[in-house]
Amino acid sequence: MKTRCLPTIALTCALALTATLARAADPLPSWNDTAPKQAILAFVEKVTKEGSPDFVPVAGRIATFDNDGTLWSEQPMYFQAFFIFDRIKALAPQHPEWSDKEPFASVLKGDVKSALAGGEKALAALMAAAHSGMTTEEFENSVTDWLATAKHPKTGRPFTEMVFQPMLEVLAYLRANGFKTFIVSGGGIEFMRPWTERVYGIPPEQVVGTSGGLKYELRDGSPVIVKLPELVLNDDKEGKPVGIQRHIGRRPIAAFGNSDGDFQMLEWTTAGKGARLGMIVHHTDAVREVAYDRESHVGRLDKGLDEAPKRGWTVIDMKTDWKTIFPADK
Amino acid sequence: MKTRCLPTIALTCALALTATLARAADPLPSWNDTAPKQAILAFVEKVTKEGSPDFVPVAGRIATFDNDGTLWSEQPMYFQAFFIFDRIKALAPQHPEWSDKEPFASVLKGDVKSALAGGEKALAALMAAAHSGMTTEEFENSVTDWLATAKHPKTGRPFTEMVFQPMLEVLAYLRANGFKTFIVSGGGIEFMRPWTERVYGIPPEQVVGTSGGLKYELRDGSPVIVKLPELVLNDDKEGKPVGIQRHIGRRPIAAFGNSDGDFQMLEWTTAGKGARLGMIVHHTDAVREVAYDRESHVGRLDKGLDEAPKRGWTVIDMKTDWKTIFPADK
Repeated sequence: MKTRCLPTIALTCALALTATLARAADPLPSWNDTAPKQAILAFVEKVTKEGSPDFVPVAGRIATFDNDGTLWSEQPMYFQAFFIFDRIKALAPQHPEWSDKEPFASVLKGDVKSALAGGEKALAALMAAAHSGMTTEEFENSVTDWLATAKHPKTGRPFTEMVFQPMLEVLAYLRANGFKTFIVSGGGIEFMRPWTERVYGIPPEQVVGTSGGLKYELRDGSPVIVKLPELVLNDDKEGKPVGIQRHIGRRPIAAFGNSDGDFQMLEWTTAGKGARLGMIVHHTDAVREVAYDRESHVGRLDKGLDEAPKRGWTVIDMKTDWKTIFPADK
Repeated sequence: MKTRCLPTIALTCALALTATLARAADPLPSWNDTAPKQAILAFVEKVTKEGSPDFVPVAGRIATFDNDGTLWSEQPMYFQAFFIFDRIKALAPQHPEWSDKEPFASVLKGDVKSALAGGEKALAALMAAAHSGMTTEEFENSVTDWLATAKHPKTGRPFTEMVFQPMLEVLAYLRANGFKTFIVSGGGIEFMRPWTERVYGIPPEQVVGTSGGLKYELRDGSPVIVKLPELVLNDDKEGKPVGIQRHIGRRPIAAFGNSDGDFQMLEWTTAGKGARLGMIVHHTDAVREVAYDRESHVGRLDKGLDEAPKRGWTVIDMKTDWKTIFPADK
C-alpha cells in the first residue's frame, strides 16, 4: 500500500496514512501468530517492496486458490454434490432409466455412500446428466435459487456461510497489496461463478474450474449458450496447471490448496523463479470443523503432507493456526 | 471518472478536476466527429452515469475486442500466419514428409496463396504442426523473438506497430471508465498473450483465443506445460460466445469486430438487456491501409454489413471516421 502526499494536502494524507497503518496493523486477525501467518506476511512484504530482490510488479501478482476444502468446507461431501443430488431428484421423472442405472439409482434411493462409490468419475457422470441441455442462464438461476434455500446437513447453515474467515482475510489482504486472486478448483466453473464475487470478492472471469462443453445456438431467434455433457477441462491434479495456463496465461506466485488434487498447482507455482508461496490447509479441527487427511474420500491429503516440508510449502493446521473458522463464529 | 472532494483540499481537487476534464475533453482524438465516435461517447456516458436507467455497475462493464482486423491489420494474411510460416520453414529439416504434403509443401515453396487455399482448416493444421510439442515457455519465447525482428512485407514495420491508433484510444477510454477490456480472437491465445499487455494494455488473463490442448508433465524433474496438436476451442463465429462464456463467464455489454467471424460475438453481446454497443470496423481505406470486405479471403465481412443497420450495430468507415490509422502516422 502506498499513499502519495503532496505538501498542500499533508494533513489529509497524514490522516489517510494513519488509517492505512491502523488497517494494516493486523490484516489477518483470525490467524494466530504462528508460522503460517508469518509466512504470508513475510511473502507479501518481500514481493511488494520496491527495490527488494524479490519485488514483483503488480501485473505479476497472481494468487490461485482451490475452493473445496480451501476456501469453504467440503465435508461430508463436496457441496456441489448436494446441488447435483437435488437436481437429479428433480429431473428423475423425465429419466425413468435412472431407476436401475448407477450412480443415479443410489442418488434416488438417498444412498449417498453408494452413489459416491464411483469417485470423481461417478460425480462427473451425475454432473453431466444434471446440467447438460440447460442454457448457461438457466443453470446460473438454478444455482442461485438452490443456494438461497439449501442448508448444510450438519450445521444447518447456508453453504455460502461455510467459508473460512481466515481465508477471506487472506484474499482481501492480497488484493489490498495489488494481487489478482483466482479460484482454481475441481468444482464446476459455472457452479461457482454465480456467487464467488459476492462471497469471496472474486469475479466470474477469475474463476477457473472443471468445464463442460458449450454450444451457441438460436432458440426462437434469441441466442443462448447450452451446456453439453462433454468434459473440456478436468480442473484437478495435472489439470490445474493446465487450467491456470488456459485461463490465466501466466504462472501464479502464490497458491493455496488443501488436498492432493492441488499438488500440481502448488508444484507448478513454487517451481517458478523468485519468491513463491505454497500453502496447504490441513483439516485438523474435529470440533470446529472436521478432521481428515490421508484416508478421506474427499479432499484426500497424503502426498502433500509428505512433500510439503521438502518443497518449502507451509501447512496450515486449522486447529492451532486459526482463531476462527467460519465468519459467524467471529 | 469521478473525483471526490473534501472541503479541506478543495483547491487541490479543483486543479485535479480541471486536469481530468482537460484529459476527458477528447478521449478519442484520432476519431473524426462522426457517428461512430458519437456512439461510443454516448454509450459510455449512459452506462457510467449513476441513476441513469442504463447505468451498469463497474463489475458488469465488460468489453470484448476481436484482434485481427479490429485492433491490428490482417492483410495480406493474418500476422500469425507469417509467424507460422517462418516456424514451418525452421522445422522443415526435421519433417522430410512435409515436402510433398499440403499445406506444408506450399509453405516451403513460398507459395502463400496455395498454402492458404485450404482456408482456416489449413491454417489450423499448420498451427498445430508448428506449435505442438513445445512447452508454453518455449513458445512464448519464440513469439517474442520473432516479433522483435519480423517486419510486415508491405510497410516494413514491426507487426506490433500495425495496431490501430483509434482503437488504442477506445481501449484506454473504456478502461478509464471502469471497463475491463478483453480480446476475443480467432488467433492463437498463446500467440497473443506475450505482447497484448505491452501493446494494448490487456493482460494475458484477459485474452481469449483459439486454444490447443495442453499437458502438464515433469521434464528432468521440472514441471512444464506442453502444447498438444488437438484443438480445444476454435474461437471464431459460434466459438466466440463460447469462448466468452468459458473465459469471462458473463455477457459483454460492448463488442468490437470487423468480420463475419465476429457476427455471433456481436449478436450475443447486443441481445442482452440494457444498453449495448456493437461496432464493426470496415476496412475502406485503400490508401492508408487496405480496402476489403465481402470478397476477402481473410476478414470477410458480408452478412455483418447487411445486418448491422437492422441490429443497431455501428459500422466504422476507416476512411472517413478515422483521422489516423497507425500510431506512427499521428
